[in-house]
Amino acid sequence: MSNLPDQLLAGYRNFMGGRYISESGRYRELAREGQTPETMVIACCDSRAAPEAIFDAGPGELFVVRNVANLVPPYAPDGEYHSTSAALEFAVQSLKVKHIVVMGHGRCGGIKAALAPDAEPLSPGDFIGKWMSLVAPAADAVSGNTMMTAGERQTALERISIRYSIANLRTFPCVKILESKERLSLHGAWFDISTGELWVMNRETGDFERPDLD
Amino acid sequence: MSNLPDQLLAGYRNFMGGRYISESGRYRELAREGQTPETMVIACCDSRAAPEAIFDAGPGELFVVRNVANLVPPYAPDGEYHSTSAALEFAVQSLKVKHIVVMGHGRCGGIKAALAPDAEPLSPGDFIGKWMSLVAPAADAVSGNTMMTAGERQTALERISIRYSIANLRTFPCVKILESKERLSLHGAWFDISTGELWVMNRETGDFERPDLD
Amino acid sequence: MSNLPDQLLAGYRNFMGGRYISESGRYRELAREGQTPETMVIACCDSRAAPEAIFDAGPGELFVVRNVANLVPPYAPDGEYHSTSAALEFAVQSLKVKHIVVMGHGRCGGIKAALAPDAEPLSPGDFIGKWMSLVAPAADAVSGNTMMTAGERQTALERISIRYSIANLRTFPCVKILESKERLSLHGAWFDISTGELWVMNRETGDFERPDLD
Amino acid sequence: MSNLPDQLLAGYRNFMGGRYISESGRYRELAREGQTPETMVIACCDSRAAPEAIFDAGPGELFVVRNVANLVPPYAPDGEYHSTSAALEFAVQSLKVKHIVVMGHGRCGGIKAALAPDAEPLSPGDFIGKWMSLVAPAADAVSGNTMMTAGERQTALERISIRYSIANLRTFPCVKILESKERLSLHGAWFDISTGELWVMNRETGDFERPDLD
Repeated sequence: MSNLPDQLLAGYRNFMGGRYISESGRYRELAREGQTPETMVIACCDSRAAPEAIFDAGPGELFVVRNVANLVPPYAPDGEYHSTSAALEFAVQSLKVKHIVVMGHGRCGGIKAALAPDAEPLSPGDFIGKWMSLVAPAADAVSGNTMMTAGERQTALERISIRYSIANLRTFPCVKILESKERLSLHGAWFDISTGELWVMNRETGDFERPDLD
Repeated sequence: MSNLPDQLLAGYRNFMGGRYISESGRYRELAREGQTPETMVIACCDSRAAPEAIFDAGPGELFVVRNVANLVPPYAPDGEYHSTSAALEFAVQSLKVKHIVVMGHGRCGGIKAALAPDAEPLSPGDFIGKWMSLVAPAADAVSGNTMMTAGERQTALERISIRYSIANLRTFPCVKILESKERLSLHGAWFDISTGELWVMNRETGDFERPDLD
Repeated sequence: MSNLPDQLLAGYRNFMGGRYISESGRYRELAREGQTPETMVIACCDSRAAPEAIFDAGPGELFVVRNVANLVPPYAPDGEYHSTSAALEFAVQSLKVKHIVVMGHGRCGGIKAALAPDAEPLSPGDFIGKWMSLVAPAADAVSGNTMMTAGERQTALERISIRYSIANLRTFPCVKILESKERLSLHGAWFDISTGELWVMNRETGDFERPDLD
Repeated sequence: MSNLPDQLLAGYRNFMGGRYISESGRYRELAREGQTPETMVIACCDSRAAPEAIFDAGPGELFVVRNVANLVPPYAPDGEYHSTSAALEFAVQSLKVKHIVVMGHGRCGGIKAALAPDAEPLSPGDFIGKWMSLVAPAADAVSGNTMMTAGERQTALERISIRYSIANLRTFPCVKILESKERLSLHGAWFDISTGELWVMNRETGDFERPDLD
């Protein structure tokens, strides 16, 4: 029995009858020549914030890591398995991407969990608890600020986390060197699921601002 | 200065003028009510194999982890950071997804690296080398078969890796239990970038077969 | 008593009332002038993979050897009876065919037997066991890979066997010489009984690929 | 570069657009359930005498060996490679066919070679010479009869060879036993390429006669 959920099979039929037909030449070329994306996106697993949708990206354009809360751990060459670091190394050293975008979004479940550290673990392994502890210092600082609303604390930590991940990117020697040579640039973005607004990080100040789309 | 690569800004304009307009109600509802995806997809970072494209998925449909070579490490509640395990825990325990799909694809750079273990590390940290060592036993078994072509060895390991990840999913107690209660089902799929063909794993035999799309 | 199985007599009536009527001129000419096929096909005896059906070939087009698993033994001018070598010699030296196609197929019973060398012989003579031992080294290499499914091992050996037979064709001096003069070309093909898909061997890499039929 | 002769690709297109479409259910069933042909045909490689054409046979109906001059060598369990004996063993012991038809035809190149034993070998290996020496005693007897025309000698040897192959079939213990139990029957047939006439061997007398098709 070889099956997939009905919804996925129906979606695949649409793909084959639609996008694949109109882009089959591109797919064949990408298979033959290999991928050469210029941009790596580090995004969240959230079903509402797919980077290809938000950036209307076609095949071959975005190399995409997705983990909970779009985090980048600090450089740790300790011989352990590092999913995100492996993807970063591959994108920078093998694919030689020119841009890395850390893209967060509103109402992020991972960030919400980080702001409720005393909640029950989701399972005995507590993988989410451990993973989100990467931003624990920031979470502690934000959650203590009771003059901000719960929604404001959430948005604040979502944005702090993006800056934190960008700072961690720079702990990787290859990123630091290539950025200093202006062959790689780092970007932050935050997507508002409700309004569809994209906010882009100002690289001087760290503020998130609406981009000029004209 | 708040900028993004031009291509991404242009793509975002398309999104706002296209998909967001037609689905703004859905986005607003998803923001208000939260996400309730029925399916988690574990896919590769590769720019040519975005699950939302292949399954023509709209906002809220797929909870997506993407790492190099769509691997799931075995259950290891050791207190370390586990990106994929954290996402899995969140999807199963918090979102209560009904399906998990491990989706591999042809010409995967990570699998290619696994089949060339003596190649130079991409960087001193050798994150890719370590990450792909998760499938080292299978890679060794495959790479020793010099009567298969390089392409055949690559496809073989891509498919073995999907089965390996599915087996590792079952090492997580919550997955094992929910699957036994028929509240969660596990699927494998393999996408041929060149032809657009999707091959679906037969759950009895492990073979990959073309789904019946009629 | 001159009889044939009813089904064959009924089929022959159809032939005489159909194909022979429409092609009687061709049959008469072929009888008068002799056959001049441009292509030799080495195919399997399997009832599901007749080359004339798959290539929609009319009378006079294909010179066809069929043995179990479409094997070509290596050149052995030892004075013994060699059925396949005799047919090859006749096709190349007397008919001067321009193409030789080794055509394998899925779910081949001979290949399945090669992957189960410890099974009981079918009869005391063990002719199948001996015949399939022609691909024993490849069968051993494949059957040791228990991470591939039984179906994957079978397909792998089917394709390795085609490459092996093509390599053996080149051990015949006449084939080697004519190929080097570009007066003879060798091809591999693999037929999927279930889907009807034909996969054609890439002569550079040995990989089997779907031909471009546009 | 994966190519096939143009004529074969064109023919395959016809197959996929014609026979496969109308019989895809049968092909899928044959793939799933395996082949169960009731009849084995031992035929010649000749491009003008394909059994599936002459018997208008669909997929799954005929298990077909084709060698030069449709010969069956005598039973020789000597541990050597025996292509035809292996196919016979597989058909009788594994597929349990009910009928074996040895089908010869007019203007057979192999028989012609057997009648000219002093001709130059086609190649230093002389595989055809050795192969056709299987019927050397009959060929010697016929070629000495200078009162028959060349055409008559050829037809005579074609028919003698069919009877000889049927006699050799009975040297295989499994054939002899199953025939005595009436679970297997042996048939001879001879096809006239020019007129399309099929002549069927009378099992009592050995004569070839036109079958009653009414």
